[in-house]
Amino acid sequence: MTQVNFPLDIDYRTVEEILLNFICCEVRKVGFEKVVIGLSGGVDSAVSCALATRALGKANVLAVMMPYKTSSPDSLADAKLLAHQLGISYELCEITPMVDAYFAAQQVTDNVRRGNVMARMRMIVLYDISMRDRRLVIGTSNKTELLLGYGTLFGDMASAINPIGDLYKTQVWALAKHLGIPNCIIEKKPSADLWEGQTDEDELGFTYAEVDKLLYQMIDLRMSDEDLLKNGTSWEFLSKTRRLVVRNQFKRMTPVIAKLSSRTLGIDFRYARDWQAVK
Amino acid sequence: MTQVNFPLDIDYRTVEEILLNFICCEVRKVGFEKVVIGLSGGVDSAVSCALATRALGKANVLAVMMPYKTSSPDSLADAKLLAHQLGISYELCEITPMVDAYFAAQQVTDNVRRGNVMARMRMIVLYDISMRDRRLVIGTSNKTELLLGYGTLFGDMASAINPIGDLYKTQVWALAKHLGIPNCIIEKKPSADLWEGQTDEDELGFTYAEVDKLLYQMIDLRMSDEDLLKNGTSWEFLSKTRRLVVRNQFKRMTPVIAKLSSRTLGIDFRYARDWQAVK
Repeated sequence: MTQVNFPLDIDYRTVEEILLNFICCEVRKVGFEKVVIGLSGGVDSAVSCALATRALGKANVLAVMMPYKTSSPDSLADAKLLAHQLGISYELCEITPMVDAYFAAQQVTDNVRRGNVMARMRMIVLYDISMRDRRLVIGTSNKTELLLGYGTLFGDMASAINPIGDLYKTQVWALAKHLGIPNCIIEKKPSADLWEGQTDEDELGFTYAEVDKLLYQMIDLRMSDEDLLKNGTSWEFLSKTRRLVVRNQFKRMTPVIAKLSSRTLGIDFRYARDWQAVK
Repeated sequence: MTQVNFPLDIDYRTVEEILLNFICCEVRKVGFEKVVIGLSGGVDSAVSCALATRALGKANVLAVMMPYKTSSPDSLADAKLLAHQLGISYELCEITPMVDAYFAAQQVTDNVRRGNVMARMRMIVLYDISMRDRRLVIGTSNKTELLLGYGTLFGDMASAINPIGDLYKTQVWALAKHLGIPNCIIEKKPSADLWEGQTDEDELGFTYAEVDKLLYQMIDLRMSDEDLLKNGTSWEFLSKTRRLVVRNQFKRMTPVIAKLSSRTLGIDFRYARDWQAVK
């Protein structure tokens, strides 16, 4: 039986150093200086924003708050609090008119559909500001969400570069503390803020502490099912988690293209963003 | 000097067979039966739609027309003509109210920004219908567009599976003929239809015939600059084309994530969509 070494609590000074360097390099090597971030009032976007500010300087970071009419006023207040603390500029862009124009025309009442439309409208705003100001869009999806597919494809999962995509949610909380993010942001229950009282952990049916530990064992340590069960994970939790990871692989890749030629995009034409200098 | 064998004119019966099989397999292995396609009236979406209809049967294909108020009425007429010819259902969803709500709030006058917002609004509609009806979104981006980055990221470039992403534009035209797509669709000048008189070839500054030949030599045959120049390509055209291919690599990949752990999404956690059975 594998002894579980469980280092989700990593050295956040080193993490910060790596991430500041990542942001500087990835922004500048493609000829950008400035970035834009959707600031929700939650901890993930707060951490991305704080990192970007430390990496690029406050003059180069723009936060955008994009509430819908049902969004909690506390979320907006917390986002503003953080922007003030960081000393960065922000813009408010209510998505209600665009969203409601669609909901009315298509009579959308299902909460999941409504949430996806909202997340994608926010992407539209961020990418439009990206082009307006020549700002890269900084991502705010953590590793837990990305693995579980708990996010909207082409919505909140869309970005140019994502500094926190390799940190589990529990690690994002710890990094937030290290960075001095206000406690009200760290301590609130994680929520997509689509309706009152919604929380991630209620929707998922488990806590982030539980699932982060399991994902770390499954994905990072590549532990076998046998060892996971021996370590006290229930079969039900293991199956449910694996199902989410597998089913949502499509959210972590580009569209599947039918192969016809000797070099096909996404199959054997596949490069890093900086595979050649941009001239 | 490399002798150029230039087989852009391939066997379209074989291509059709491969693509019908691709569509069937990729749709069904993830538990879907039905698909949805944005039908613009142009040749790319016409070909994707005709292929999907042959692969899955007309009862399983829904076309969606999503005009903006400035879209050409001819585009809509051509899209309807094709839907009638194929015998498939279609829905009309005007994007004008959603788009104008944003343009008014943000005073967007720049044509490129406006075009991106429209393309992304159409993605929102298609993905919402995808969830409403359990339909996979079929892509309509050809290889020329994907290589040149001549499309909107998270807009028209967004899909679940793309049958025509490995065919150059000139090959899409030939496949369209083979499939019996109406001549009015094949013969019209390719255009994003954002303003009257706009054509792709005017905007790009070269014809699809020219650039497809060059891209095929550069990408598929991996010809050296020296051989390309000896074959009669101008240095200016070569540089411009390569710049587009390189600069737009970001549109052909998922967001760049900072590496912190032993297994990072998009870096060393990277699988095909069907790497495990979906249970």
